[in-house]
Amino acid sequence: MAQQNTNPARGMRDFLPADVRRREYVIGVIKDVYQKYGFEPLETPAVENLETLMGKYGEEGNQLIFKILKRGEGEKTGEADLALRYDLTVPLARVVANYKNELPKFFKRYQIQPVWRADRPARGRFREFYQCDVDAIGSKSMIVEAELISAVCEVLQRLGFKDFVIKLNNRQLLDAMMSSAMIDKEKRSNVLVAIDKLDKIGADGVRNELDNLNITESSINTILYLTTNEKFFALSGKIESYFPPEDNYLQNKEKLMLYGRYFNDFSSNSEGRILAQEAIKLLNNIIDLTEKSPSRNHIKIDASLARGLSYYTSAIFEINVPDLAGSLGGGGRYDGLIGMFGKEEIPACGFSLGLERILVVMNERGMFQELEEKGLLKAKPADVLVTIWNEETVSDSLELANDLRAQGLRVAVYPEADKLGKQFKYASSIGVSAVAILGDDERANNAVTIKYLETGEQETISRERLSTELKI
Amino acid sequence: MAQQNTNPARGMRDFLPADVRRREYVIGVIKDVYQKYGFEPLETPAVENLETLMGKYGEEGNQLIFKILKRGEGEKTGEADLALRYDLTVPLARVVANYKNELPKFFKRYQIQPVWRADRPARGRFREFYQCDVDAIGSKSMIVEAELISAVCEVLQRLGFKDFVIKLNNRQLLDAMMSSAMIDKEKRSNVLVAIDKLDKIGADGVRNELDNLNITESSINTILYLTTNEKFFALSGKIESYFPPEDNYLQNKEKLMLYGRYFNDFSSNSEGRILAQEAIKLLNNIIDLTEKSPSRNHIKIDASLARGLSYYTSAIFEINVPDLAGSLGGGGRYDGLIGMFGKEEIPACGFSLGLERILVVMNERGMFQELEEKGLLKAKPADVLVTIWNEETVSDSLELANDLRAQGLRVAVYPEADKLGKQFKYASSIGVSAVAILGDDERANNAVTIKYLETGEQETISRERLSTELKI
Repeated sequence: MAQQNTNPARGMRDFLPADVRRREYVIGVIKDVYQKYGFEPLETPAVENLETLMGKYGEEGNQLIFKILKRGEGEKTGEADLALRYDLTVPLARVVANYKNELPKFFKRYQIQPVWRADRPARGRFREFYQCDVDAIGSKSMIVEAELISAVCEVLQRLGFKDFVIKLNNRQLLDAMMSSAMIDKEKRSNVLVAIDKLDKIGADGVRNELDNLNITESSINTILYLTTNEKFFALSGKIESYFPPEDNYLQNKEKLMLYGRYFNDFSSNSEGRILAQEAIKLLNNIIDLTEKSPSRNHIKIDASLARGLSYYTSAIFEINVPDLAGSLGGGGRYDGLIGMFGKEEIPACGFSLGLERILVVMNERGMFQELEEKGLLKAKPADVLVTIWNEETVSDSLELANDLRAQGLRVAVYPEADKLGKQFKYASSIGVSAVAILGDDERANNAVTIKYLETGEQETISRERLSTELKI
Repeated sequence: MAQQNTNPARGMRDFLPADVRRREYVIGVIKDVYQKYGFEPLETPAVENLETLMGKYGEEGNQLIFKILKRGEGEKTGEADLALRYDLTVPLARVVANYKNELPKFFKRYQIQPVWRADRPARGRFREFYQCDVDAIGSKSMIVEAELISAVCEVLQRLGFKDFVIKLNNRQLLDAMMSSAMIDKEKRSNVLVAIDKLDKIGADGVRNELDNLNITESSINTILYLTTNEKFFALSGKIESYFPPEDNYLQNKEKLMLYGRYFNDFSSNSEGRILAQEAIKLLNNIIDLTEKSPSRNHIKIDASLARGLSYYTSAIFEINVPDLAGSLGGGGRYDGLIGMFGKEEIPACGFSLGLERILVVMNERGMFQELEEKGLLKAKPADVLVTIWNEETVSDSLELANDLRAQGLRVAVYPEADKLGKQFKYASSIGVSAVAILGDDERANNAVTIKYLETGEQETISRERLSTELKI
């Protein structure tokens, strides 16, 4: 047989033990915090009916869905009827519509599972990656937003992050701005996508994109005036420098007051004014509800925040740290999505954390080493390796291994009756620095010798006193 | 828009919170025990290159692989280049071949992930299900088998199983039997499949199947003589009744002695004798190595055990409990599989536990209720629900929720300023029996009232003494 390609599929990754331990540590913290906030776990299949996913993620999204051949005839005709999960939000909406009578009126769930996108693989962009979602279903109250922000803050703090910012905006404020610029409703989501690129492609780039969308020159001028002058987006930086840098609450309240004033004084149409007032009221509500929360000083109102997904209807969030170009996660309120599956509109709001992004920053910052040094993250496969003295005494060594496990230790056993030096070398190679030796003397005296490979020290302990004297 | 189908795809399942909690409890025990035995975690992508999977699972397996359309042109031509993972063993073999220089000489890994098979869905048979695999790579020593059996035993015991049996056989013993019956090597794996059905279809059924495989009548007669008379398979039951029922060790040793005597005395050819001697030596080795282990009395030598997969080469295992028709899991040694991917043969041996099977038995036996009663499994989404007194004091309620979380409690917050009675009703509906009330009096006195909905009792506790006086 010809030798086979042994790489994982393109854009997919194998996770060797050290990777998995770090991933599971982060996932464990996320689960633990979300449970403390009363969120419950949900899992959905990796595979959905194709029709469940199509048409939910916009045109670009449709093209990135991995499609699975229909069983039987499909293998000949090429017909696909299933697809790999593209995110965790659409499956949640399907679940809420499907199990309406089994789920509580307010359903708070977290879900940590992989998703698949047929994107062109690139540095940091994979075709299989994990999303860590947390969503609250069934209430329009901003208490939901406040609790979600608190929970996400606590996750990041528990992981060791201090310098993160949760940007907060409301889609209706962007809508108000576009309404003031006289942009037709059906064009607004595309205009948003263009505005979202301001940081990357600059004002001239945005002008080009808006021109390609057939936006009138006067509308383009208004949009660029609002987003690049001190009236609106750029206002944020100014306010942040006027107010105490350690007090996000005051900064956020001031920004909202100024935005409100702008729309009341200058907005050319009443639709824009009404949308803006409603958005500003809701944002003020969130800022006030988090005033006494630890998240207070991590929240920043940012009127330029747009978020890519089309299903958001009100509050939107994004989490940033200074040393990452993209975001660690984001989310928002999507009061219309579940209605696409069920008979009724059900309000919903949620956050999605990107596991891979969090891991990249934690790795680069050396945060895992800190956790290992503190003993919070175990980096080695075992605490001790039980060696094999000779073929005749193997069952005694296996018995010793089980005794040591009963003491709560993680115990590996060398699988062959090799020379002891070779067994020590193997222990070192897997990072295990304590080895247990059960030689003829030890067996005669019902004892065991523990040797510490790093220092060369060793001690012989009676088997009866293992539980009190063993200090691995 | 027409209302959509909200069911999961055919043969796939959504897991609501109560399901996920039970699944995660079992997975947690499995991980914990495997780590205690020095096994390390591995994760591979759900999606593999199609060529990695094809030709590894036999003809029937090939047809059950879910194939994924190639991106771009594949959507038109129907060409598939990727596929969903069918088991965890082939990906392990690929990983071992691919990362040979990064992995330790003896690599012990566990892997708990879903696999997908395009089987016809039926009761208890799903198209997406979890496998919990544990494998040791790199040694031919039976220490590997002994440790694997111990680890699996400890998993089952920790889950609360007492009455399980680990059936043990060696493929070479079956080979020796077929050699004695003069069956050609290339027909043996098909003959094994037929013999494996003896329990289900009886001797006449097996005779038919062997006839269809063009096995000579004299070979068929020998096979049926061995398997249905007291010479071989049927010997097991006899021995079990001769020896103390509580001593599997003695029973197993006696069986192996009698099998050995049979092949020495009666086997018509030397190939059969040599294969049998080798197999019996290895089985004796495993029985002796586990003599002092807690698994000792769970192991039963069973010469009729065949296991379906074609890649096993030596020891094979299967776990059974009396109240389940199928098995809870199984495994064996497969010294040839990794060589299909790499340049060299690397010995390997492993076990696979079926998560769904374990859950079915635990659910039917009420084992989860016991765990819940003992407090080992949390069945409720929160320990306490913080109620909302009125719109004006919401941020105080949120602050209280965070204070209670800091006490280690899992805390839900009612999201709206509804009437208290409605909030209590919601708490009961999600199984939360303690609610926190922060009314005007409580706020004036810096206190909180905790009401226990099941008894109707309530107590008012000073906020300063929450950490010492709260007894939820």
